[in-house]
Amino acid sequence: MSIPTIVPVQNAALALQLGKAIDNKTKPLGSLGMLEGLARQLGLIQQSSRLTLDAPAILVFAGDHGVVAEGVSAYPQDVTWQMVENFLAGGAAINVFARQNGCALQVVDAGVNHDFGPRAGLVDCKVAHGTRNFAQEAAMTAAECDRALQHGMALAAELPGNVLGFGEMGIGNTTAAAALMHKLTGIPVSDCVGAGTGLSAEGILRKQQVIEAAAAKHADVSAPLDVLATFGGFEIAMMVGAMLKAAERRMVLLIDGFIVTSALLVAARVQPAILDYCVFAHCSDESGHQRMLEQLGARPLLHLGLRLGEGTGSALALPLLQAAVNFMNEMATFESAQVSEKSE
Amino acid sequence: MSIPTIVPVQNAALALQLGKAIDNKTKPLGSLGMLEGLARQLGLIQQSSRLTLDAPAILVFAGDHGVVAEGVSAYPQDVTWQMVENFLAGGAAINVFARQNGCALQVVDAGVNHDFGPRAGLVDCKVAHGTRNFAQEAAMTAAECDRALQHGMALAAELPGNVLGFGEMGIGNTTAAAALMHKLTGIPVSDCVGAGTGLSAEGILRKQQVIEAAAAKHADVSAPLDVLATFGGFEIAMMVGAMLKAAERRMVLLIDGFIVTSALLVAARVQPAILDYCVFAHCSDESGHQRMLEQLGARPLLHLGLRLGEGTGSALALPLLQAAVNFMNEMATFESAQVSEKSE
Repeated sequence: MSIPTIVPVQNAALALQLGKAIDNKTKPLGSLGMLEGLARQLGLIQQSSRLTLDAPAILVFAGDHGVVAEGVSAYPQDVTWQMVENFLAGGAAINVFARQNGCALQVVDAGVNHDFGPRAGLVDCKVAHGTRNFAQEAAMTAAECDRALQHGMALAAELPGNVLGFGEMGIGNTTAAAALMHKLTGIPVSDCVGAGTGLSAEGILRKQQVIEAAAAKHADVSAPLDVLATFGGFEIAMMVGAMLKAAERRMVLLIDGFIVTSALLVAARVQPAILDYCVFAHCSDESGHQRMLEQLGARPLLHLGLRLGEGTGSALALPLLQAAVNFMNEMATFESAQVSEKSE
Repeated sequence: MSIPTIVPVQNAALALQLGKAIDNKTKPLGSLGMLEGLARQLGLIQQSSRLTLDAPAILVFAGDHGVVAEGVSAYPQDVTWQMVENFLAGGAAINVFARQNGCALQVVDAGVNHDFGPRAGLVDCKVAHGTRNFAQEAAMTAAECDRALQHGMALAAELPGNVLGFGEMGIGNTTAAAALMHKLTGIPVSDCVGAGTGLSAEGILRKQQVIEAAAAKHADVSAPLDVLATFGGFEIAMMVGAMLKAAERRMVLLIDGFIVTSALLVAARVQPAILDYCVFAHCSDESGHQRMLEQLGARPLLHLGLRLGEGTGSALALPLLQAAVNFMNEMATFESAQVSEKSE
């Protein structure tokens, strides 16, 4: 399998030009805060000082996890396919927020343990009916992991727009994400696990012990894609593939919460320059997400205490991307508006 | 002058009903974080579990400040009227963000030191050509302060919608706002002053000394509306009036940054129940805003390091209000979507 090549966005001349354009707008220097940094980043990604947000899309990847057999989730596994049905019917939070903010939504069956049959609006990329239980064996074979990555790359290759948001659904996937986080960063498992969809303190401890035992069992696994195959989910692996391809295509990657960020941890090990293309939508309330973001040097846009997944943070952050684009394209300059400049 | 009467939004039965409606949506309990608290608050303000966002408007109040004679701003006073022209031409940041988020914008001349003549799009409520220099005498007379409050109430009384955002423009108004903050909260002046539009450390110290001297000079002034008349601006007083009337009408008040919040400090002293109606759009980067918000027990939605004023934070927060309304009205329930509930 060939991994996409991602080039850093560095461009000193363009960075200077963007900085000047931002500073000439009719506002005190730096007064648009993070929106200014965002405009700079978008300009470098798009290699232009004329920014655009074209046909933003969110892909929601759904998959099931064999590790739920260990009792690591507050909800039964059936909720994965039931929520996919909810997505298809337009009744989930991500449907509401994507609609509101003019964002296309694609729902991808990456490996749900359910037969949907051919369904309008559902992209069938099913690798298998859920992963294996990583407490006992690797979650997927290398071939399955490859298939998931390839599907993700193919999906990202076809998108018409220049912004791709990521979302996911999968009962048990905070357990997979916490295991990936532990293996890839070395942060103790106790700092990686959280309540997920709503575990009790006892449930969280159980989740921690399951991951610790599995990490010991698979202690010899260390290459990023092997770690992904051992502990990941099909939805996570598919996101890794889509992220790599989207960054190769110089799209903006809109990173959601804990599980999406765990996929990025893998992708960034494979192609570190991918981080240049990432906008971090929010800091989730899922314990561990903040540490994950720190590891990546990320400054998320929103801090709303969300912990829902589905890409909801990505959808909610989209108007801020639009605002960064719009102030660059639409605001007057001191000169054009004949406003006096700083006198001090 | 009669001050509007504002009633607390408390309603235990409705609060219970709102809580149930939120918890029945297809998502883990509490997983929409601050959006859930926002939905609860909007429901209590609107006395309904069917939320609406009707014709949101932002009023931008502009006024000049005599205290600029003390050299407390990085920009010359002319920038106030020049920026009003920029608002009228549609080229300022607030124009861009209000347009983007479907928010009506009204620009109000509360007391700019400039003759605009009759102008399309400019609401003429000019009380005077700027306030007096509070380093030497009270910024306004009681009669002028009254006129400003009355104008604000009249403006808020006429608005067709149910959400009112506040914005302001006025060279020197962070000095007035810091003085109000100091007098109304007792927080030391050094913790109230900041860089405003971009003062140097030396400039900030000068600003602090000007306020300290003025506070000593007017030490006997303590009633909230007297403090407002002594240190405030016409745009600040007009916002106080508009806030009081809008809350009486059970509108949602969208509170922007440092100067808008200083107006709210005054209004909340007059009618404490007004805080039930306030949504805090963002925490500004202007030093002192965070302390002000703490004084009010406020949890702002956005933390973007903005310090531009004009109501830009209000405009940028509007999609989050819309998201709170939409998830309540559009998301499926566990029952309607036939999704299994928590099993643990």
